[in-house]
Amino acid sequence: MRIDSVDFFYLRMPVVLDIGDGSQDALLVRVRAGNHEGWGECEASPLTSIASWVAPMSHSACKPVSASVVGRELDGPEDIRRLNRLVQENSFDLLQWPHTFSGIDVALWDLLGRKREEPVWKLLDMAASHPKRPYASQLFGDRPEETYARASETRKQGFTAAKFGWGPYGRDIEESARHLEAARAGLGDDVDLMVDVGTLWKGCGQAMGFVPAVQAARVVWLEEPFPGEEYEEYRALSHRTGIPLAGGEGCDSLAQAVNFVRFADPAFLQIDAGRIGGITPATFAASYAAGQGARFVNHTFTSSLALSASLQPYANHRDSYCEYPLDPKPVARDLTASRLVPDPDGLIRAPDAPGLGLDVDLESVERYLVEVEINVGGRTLFRSDRSMLR
Amino acid sequence: MRIDSVDFFYLRMPVVLDIGDGSQDALLVRVRAGNHEGWGECEASPLTSIASWVAPMSHSACKPVSASVVGRELDGPEDIRRLNRLVQENSFDLLQWPHTFSGIDVALWDLLGRKREEPVWKLLDMAASHPKRPYASQLFGDRPEETYARASETRKQGFTAAKFGWGPYGRDIEESARHLEAARAGLGDDVDLMVDVGTLWKGCGQAMGFVPAVQAARVVWLEEPFPGEEYEEYRALSHRTGIPLAGGEGCDSLAQAVNFVRFADPAFLQIDAGRIGGITPATFAASYAAGQGARFVNHTFTSSLALSASLQPYANHRDSYCEYPLDPKPVARDLTASRLVPDPDGLIRAPDAPGLGLDVDLESVERYLVEVEINVGGRTLFRSDRSMLR
Repeated sequence: MRIDSVDFFYLRMPVVLDIGDGSQDALLVRVRAGNHEGWGECEASPLTSIASWVAPMSHSACKPVSASVVGRELDGPEDIRRLNRLVQENSFDLLQWPHTFSGIDVALWDLLGRKREEPVWKLLDMAASHPKRPYASQLFGDRPEETYARASETRKQGFTAAKFGWGPYGRDIEESARHLEAARAGLGDDVDLMVDVGTLWKGCGQAMGFVPAVQAARVVWLEEPFPGEEYEEYRALSHRTGIPLAGGEGCDSLAQAVNFVRFADPAFLQIDAGRIGGITPATFAASYAAGQGARFVNHTFTSSLALSASLQPYANHRDSYCEYPLDPKPVARDLTASRLVPDPDGLIRAPDAPGLGLDVDLESVERYLVEVEINVGGRTLFRSDRSMLR
Repeated sequence: MRIDSVDFFYLRMPVVLDIGDGSQDALLVRVRAGNHEGWGECEASPLTSIASWVAPMSHSACKPVSASVVGRELDGPEDIRRLNRLVQENSFDLLQWPHTFSGIDVALWDLLGRKREEPVWKLLDMAASHPKRPYASQLFGDRPEETYARASETRKQGFTAAKFGWGPYGRDIEESARHLEAARAGLGDDVDLMVDVGTLWKGCGQAMGFVPAVQAARVVWLEEPFPGEEYEEYRALSHRTGIPLAGGEGCDSLAQAVNFVRFADPAFLQIDAGRIGGITPATFAASYAAGQGARFVNHTFTSSLALSASLQPYANHRDSYCEYPLDPKPVARDLTASRLVPDPDGLIRAPDAPGLGLDVDLESVERYLVEVEINVGGRTLFRSDRSMLR
């Protein structure tokens, strides 16, 4: 069959706040081929990604993403891998493409799974979808007492692991220590704790001041102490302190993920299938990391659809963690008719149902839909409205 | 003073061909502050970069580029450097921003130079603008005879260095060798020859087959044998063969340029100020490369405005090359009222006139202008038309 159409739906909350919460908007992708349909989600800046879908060609290595997708053959997994290579070749000079294509790649796998009535992880030649331990991913409170309250609440909800990040952490050494103590106290001794610095620190020198409290809090990992490209700072900090480091969420290509593992030597590689270019490169990254002794973890802060997509690349890994968005905004929470939740044992798995195993809630999509129109040189290159949902 | 306005002008040829010629369109940027004006140019995919300028905020680390620029203070070079840091912080999840901001950064330096009546390189604390040897940058012919004809013509025009790239080169070993022989024969023994592979090869193993002809042609450098992130392939090829390698044009951050120098160990670092985020990060990259023993060269394939911008970061380097776009399309060629051309000695320099030293030709801009309108949620976020030129 051929790819008949790709449609983008820009969804957002009525008000988007200037906070570190990536679940306030979404770019949903629907792909149709033959009589089948698949859905995916792209990370961040929906308008920019829509523009890169239709942007007129600049030259042979800078074509609109649509040029590499619409009308192409889609009969099996190898076709999706071929599309990944093609769009990369055609987009050398189009920085936005990996975010745009991520949702498309995810939707293509979903479509193929629905058609074959198999979960995506089976199409990826995996023998089983092993359960993961979800960690409740959330922001630090503004004050240590709020961090404590959130930690206690997380424990009450039955989570056995929790990550706190951003907000007040990482600026003042003593205040940061109080937040870590509060998190550890609220979680109790037996719940795993991760900490996300959000790339705040300027080099290993600055990081060292925060290290004693990090060690005292017995963290499973310290996440993104530095920007992702600062390989040598990562390597220096982990080798000097023994603290397991995590990073990689910003990777927007397989090559970046490979270099991060190779040169930064992290204990955990965190990949978002909505950023790196989809399930295809994320799966290669998961295999590569495993071979190098780095543990793969999904990065997800939005919908169940994005979560299922980010779980597929390492569905076959045992004894792994899963980032679980604890409190996404309604636009993300209500995107699917059912939600991916922990099972009675508190564990979470890539679904066994066909494709990504989730249905998009069209009523919810309609509720949050933002209409977009792009005109260039007197021609309408893109228009989305409610009629596209029928 | 404060930054009053930033305007984008999408220019393009009436027909854009599917060829490796990046001069077929342009995204021109005009910044106004106080009573002053500056101009810059962004690389590639104008519509996508315009969208990232106005794209509604997704979260605190994904804001429109405009949010970091309009209304900000601009009194000296340190303000431009601060804007670079701010836009980076605000754009973690906006892949397109470095291309968008490149033109803005360039225009800010141009504006400041015009205001102070000094060339940009003086604002960068450089003592002198040293002449560079331009190499005529062009595509291989379709057949070796055409490559020979282009090489002879380049020699006749007085160039003492020439680069050939893309097209038929790098696929078939014997045909590629014939093109190299033709280029060398057409140039004669005393003209420097560079070769651009355009990231075509899959690893050092494939490259080795092409090596004997590259060595026989006595190239100054072999450019982009592999994609820019494949650091270990670069290192392996140069260490194994002694051929000086060049690369880096795709760098869209200072961190990428630093990692490329650090891990790929190239002989030449090629940076495009229209891609890396402007003159500011390009200047840091030039200093870093020099300190590491890699020679800095501009990457430019478009207008004189882009050429002047890409010359500033290493204006103070002696005995350097300069990529000189030999035959840009009219939209790029006619963008400025005067053109940056080699002096009677055949050398080229960053101008001594204020700012970038070039005036934009507004009639030409009007001739190639493409009108753009972007509507989101019933609001017009961007509209460009001819009236903006007045």
